[in-house]
Amino acid sequence: MAVPSSTHPRCLLPLFLGLFQGALLLFFALFVTYDEASAQAEDPTLVANQVYSTFPFFQDIQVMLVVGLGLLLAFLPRYGFSALTHNFLLLNFSMQWALLLQGLLHHLHHGQIHLDLHKLLISEFAAVTVLISVGAILGRASPCQLLVMATCEIPAYLASEWVIVPCLGVLDVGGTITIHVFSCYFGLGVSKALFRAKQQPAHPKETPTPRSDLMSLVGTLILWVFWPSFVAVLCQPGDAQHRAILNTLLAMSASAITTVVASSLLERDGKLSPGHLQNGSLAGGVAIGVVADMAVPPVAALALGSLSAVVCVLGFRFLTPLLGRKLTLHDQCGIHNLHGLPGILGAAASVVAVLVASKDTSGSHPSQLSPVGGNASEVMEGQWGGRGAGEQALCQAAGLAVAVGASLLAGLLTGAALRLPCLARPPERLCFDDSLYFKIQDQAESPGPDSSAEEGALALKEQD
Amino acid sequence: MAVPSSTHPRCLLPLFLGLFQGALLLFFALFVTYDEASAQAEDPTLVANQVYSTFPFFQDIQVMLVVGLGLLLAFLPRYGFSALTHNFLLLNFSMQWALLLQGLLHHLHHGQIHLDLHKLLISEFAAVTVLISVGAILGRASPCQLLVMATCEIPAYLASEWVIVPCLGVLDVGGTITIHVFSCYFGLGVSKALFRAKQQPAHPKETPTPRSDLMSLVGTLILWVFWPSFVAVLCQPGDAQHRAILNTLLAMSASAITTVVASSLLERDGKLSPGHLQNGSLAGGVAIGVVADMAVPPVAALALGSLSAVVCVLGFRFLTPLLGRKLTLHDQCGIHNLHGLPGILGAAASVVAVLVASKDTSGSHPSQLSPVGGNASEVMEGQWGGRGAGEQALCQAAGLAVAVGASLLAGLLTGAALRLPCLARPPERLCFDDSLYFKIQDQAESPGPDSSAEEGALALKEQD
Amino acid sequence: MAVPSSTHPRCLLPLFLGLFQGALLLFFALFVTYDEASAQAEDPTLVANQVYSTFPFFQDIQVMLVVGLGLLLAFLPRYGFSALTHNFLLLNFSMQWALLLQGLLHHLHHGQIHLDLHKLLISEFAAVTVLISVGAILGRASPCQLLVMATCEIPAYLASEWVIVPCLGVLDVGGTITIHVFSCYFGLGVSKALFRAKQQPAHPKETPTPRSDLMSLVGTLILWVFWPSFVAVLCQPGDAQHRAILNTLLAMSASAITTVVASSLLERDGKLSPGHLQNGSLAGGVAIGVVADMAVPPVAALALGSLSAVVCVLGFRFLTPLLGRKLTLHDQCGIHNLHGLPGILGAAASVVAVLVASKDTSGSHPSQLSPVGGNASEVMEGQWGGRGAGEQALCQAAGLAVAVGASLLAGLLTGAALRLPCLARPPERLCFDDSLYFKIQDQAESPGPDSSAEEGALALKEQD
Repeated sequence: MAVPSSTHPRCLLPLFLGLFQGALLLFFALFVTYDEASAQAEDPTLVANQVYSTFPFFQDIQVMLVVGLGLLLAFLPRYGFSALTHNFLLLNFSMQWALLLQGLLHHLHHGQIHLDLHKLLISEFAAVTVLISVGAILGRASPCQLLVMATCEIPAYLASEWVIVPCLGVLDVGGTITIHVFSCYFGLGVSKALFRAKQQPAHPKETPTPRSDLMSLVGTLILWVFWPSFVAVLCQPGDAQHRAILNTLLAMSASAITTVVASSLLERDGKLSPGHLQNGSLAGGVAIGVVADMAVPPVAALALGSLSAVVCVLGFRFLTPLLGRKLTLHDQCGIHNLHGLPGILGAAASVVAVLVASKDTSGSHPSQLSPVGGNASEVMEGQWGGRGAGEQALCQAAGLAVAVGASLLAGLLTGAALRLPCLARPPERLCFDDSLYFKIQDQAESPGPDSSAEEGALALKEQD
Repeated sequence: MAVPSSTHPRCLLPLFLGLFQGALLLFFALFVTYDEASAQAEDPTLVANQVYSTFPFFQDIQVMLVVGLGLLLAFLPRYGFSALTHNFLLLNFSMQWALLLQGLLHHLHHGQIHLDLHKLLISEFAAVTVLISVGAILGRASPCQLLVMATCEIPAYLASEWVIVPCLGVLDVGGTITIHVFSCYFGLGVSKALFRAKQQPAHPKETPTPRSDLMSLVGTLILWVFWPSFVAVLCQPGDAQHRAILNTLLAMSASAITTVVASSLLERDGKLSPGHLQNGSLAGGVAIGVVADMAVPPVAALALGSLSAVVCVLGFRFLTPLLGRKLTLHDQCGIHNLHGLPGILGAAASVVAVLVASKDTSGSHPSQLSPVGGNASEVMEGQWGGRGAGEQALCQAAGLAVAVGASLLAGLLTGAALRLPCLARPPERLCFDDSLYFKIQDQAESPGPDSSAEEGALALKEQD
Repeated sequence: MAVPSSTHPRCLLPLFLGLFQGALLLFFALFVTYDEASAQAEDPTLVANQVYSTFPFFQDIQVMLVVGLGLLLAFLPRYGFSALTHNFLLLNFSMQWALLLQGLLHHLHHGQIHLDLHKLLISEFAAVTVLISVGAILGRASPCQLLVMATCEIPAYLASEWVIVPCLGVLDVGGTITIHVFSCYFGLGVSKALFRAKQQPAHPKETPTPRSDLMSLVGTLILWVFWPSFVAVLCQPGDAQHRAILNTLLAMSASAITTVVASSLLERDGKLSPGHLQNGSLAGGVAIGVVADMAVPPVAALALGSLSAVVCVLGFRFLTPLLGRKLTLHDQCGIHNLHGLPGILGAAASVVAVLVASKDTSGSHPSQLSPVGGNASEVMEGQWGGRGAGEQALCQAAGLAVAVGASLLAGLLTGAALRLPCLARPPERLCFDDSLYFKIQDQAESPGPDSSAEEGALALKEQD
């Protein structure tokens, strides 16, 4: 299969990445040292404890992003190698880029930037937004386009996160609003601006096979298992972190069961759709992030998990086809259903949680009388910085609005930039194919015109 | 391929799961809150330490059950998606059901149930029994049957565990007797009552392919790596936990090597059987659980691991075919060889360990003279609640008898219930096939003798 | 496909392993007990803390070796099951053998050997050398040959490590010199002596397929994620461990990006080579090990990661073919590019780091004035045992020379031993095939009587 002559863009990728690595090296050489915490704290066991308390969470998150998310995206049968590699490359690029930008923006007041595990973690969170947004255009974009997208998305995310968390004081420990909602609408904006009004035709290589669906399910399960670490890593150690872990576990467990219920009710014959399972089981984790460390009762976590799974499955069944038809909006992986809708649901839940929590402390709810409820509410009021509950609820809503608005705008602009011809968008017939970017044996060789029935049967048998 | 008209059972699954989720929500709304430990302990670092000491173990166990066990069961080449999904669904359902039942039964005396990570862990252990038992009928039962089985098994397990551990005082930190032996004979009972005297014919889709064997081996390796966490999570922190980890590592390492020895001696040509490897390597972990935290010497762990691997491989080679012929007992995954026989071996080892440990303290064995042996024996006597060694050894044997008896009885009754026609047992020719339950491209379509170009294209598409 | 009559060697494997297990049991029965640390330390929380601080790292390393490395080696499409199983078997055998040898050699002065997690970890590190060396002859050696190789390599490693670390005082916390360089040249020595001047012909089953490349990439990603645990597990808790983790993360991130740059510049059409990605992304981890806990600035970690990825990709592109042509040196997995070249680079970097660090403390470099630099240098001087920087730098170089020399010599001798006919080296046409060692459905069954040669070849190619 001949690849169109495109020698110029072929050089663009290494050139771009090489220059970036050079700039990063220069920046690190000039400004970055290690944060020798013990020299300040005079207590080596303190540093050790920080390592032991953060590092296992960090490793869990790395497994999620590198292995779990990579495999989840490998549902395209001939695009698995590309999905894993591009995911891996974008994670590293975006993490380094976020590290560089954050260094430049926030830490220059001391001249030296002290690198520690926490700063790497924050950069990794920024990189997550890119990995999610890619889902909207997976398989139809070149690596160059993806890198340019990452280059634009990271500063947009940092700006939006700065407005939402430090400025507005939005509570969002698991990144529901700042990460999931933002990256979803950024990705949809890019998709809209990149493909414009042209509806993307169904592609023969787009249909998952049993084997690629299995790989993708394994990815889902890895994400499902480690999600509590993602939500809880930035919580206050102690009760808040414990509660965040439990809330996330409950929400994800409810999501898993409710997805089966919703999918088998919506599909004909009651057969489950692999796509619903792969996404719906994770919807609870997206939604719970924003309220995970609040003093919500366990039943709320269960209910939120169930509800977000329903919303996710309904989105796949009805909303995605509708958006495709009405708005010619292309969403390859259904990120709107997994990150957008449950994210909005979670934001709404946080408004309710803030309002209810304040009623608990002033009213006569039984939990208020116990030291538990009282304590949790105290902690929460401390978090609000002296604000009233109504004001905080308003802030949560405002944060959601900022995330949606900023991401859509930035996404549309970025998508327009991705139309630059030098970025080498792959032609339609070469989409969803590893062999365009990798020296991989072409899987599409036809078995020849004179293949007999037995040979066909053999090929079938050998397939698995 | 036409699926028999069975619209009624198709609704049963979502109905059943939906009602269950509703009941769980109601129960949580009324009775469950979080256990705010810091409010009682007045010490936030205590909670933090509990989280850091338990949570990594908990995550390891989640990986084992969700990813490892799921992949291990994916050795059926066309049933991999079902195996992973049913395993995942049953884990969540059984965990929630155990949480609900334990809440109702044990914790109602305070009105409020305080949820914490430890309670979730206990419920997860209960769910493990269901996941193991399923192995006996894997591929020949509908999701509805599996859910009904889980519904019956959890209360039977909780009752049996209550008799064995708190009442009889059996020592079984790794669940060898309470989990592995119980679930094995429960599963065999279900299989016997479900299939009765009818021998299950060999099914063409039952034979593993190289690729499904590889996936299954990956599952084994994941289980093998994380097994020490499963055994040690409930141990006393400190020496006992350290010893449990080391004993499990030694036993599993010996199992791995002995499996290779036994399998290559028993198979013609000295070729190894994938099934032996996938199961035998884990047999040591099953057997060691009951003695892992006792003061057994390292050599005992190695010997127990080796012996259980031998027993497991012999079981696969001789006992399973014999049981199939003589008792028409169907055991799809060979759970009797992996969980039954090594479990009984472990229980026997615990009797010996208890008797030997007592001789050490009263006799003149060198280890008694060192502070180490003396200390360990003291700890152990403390665990026995003032009982003599002979009495404790008797209790261990009684615990085994209770586990076998109770599980067989409960399993037979459950299996009889699974014969209800409304539970939609799949017809023989549709067994072991993902496409019965999932909207997955059928892998079995034969291209036919007169395959035209379109069919060729289809075959190509299906290949990956 | 008929397997040549070789009943004698078929018995050799179980005989060898069985005798070894027996010897190990005897040794453990006589000399090994558990190290009941609390009895000495009188502080159970101390043991608990040791378990919590080491065990998660240990589990990470187990996942790397058992799952990650196994999958990485599964790039041979019909040899995946063998690659995973042999890797698993060799890990267990080598670990036990190292445990036995270390017990005999170092710990006999107290009569009793006290086993603990740290000793298991040290033995596991020894086993890693075997797993790496195997890469040179993967697919062309019988299990018996691999076991004999492990039997010879472990004592050679222990001797070499004893000279390098305790005698010469080389600093090598991540095993760059002692593990990676040693095992690489040992493997190359074995390969040279085993295959001699006969160039190994390209084998039809040697070419990766898209699916086996995907599995191998998943293995790479698992290794990539957990590599920091491997490097940092033996560091001093506190700052040094924190720095080692950060340095490894930075180096591996730089490696990932630089590999893409280098591979797309070197390959025609700018397509990336899967082999480059699978290996180059890890090269930074190999190189950083020796300087990970030294007071190197973050930029050095980035630069070392980038440089080692370049070296690794260049090695695959130019050096491996050259060595094959000029020296008829066969290196199946390219271990020289992943472990040899980056290992030497790391050793060179450690020489520079030692010299620069000493200049910092005596000169007027800004970092010396801060308490950070001073503190780190103090720690480092303490590690050097009162030696000057020049002397320590010389030691680092001497350590590298010892590792290369000893491993080449031992490897050549071992390779000569592997030519013993009783070890059953597989004939050329049966290489790279699972069905020689496992009861696995033959994937190479000829497609019927009337299939022409081309169709057979095609079927072979497409099967995976």
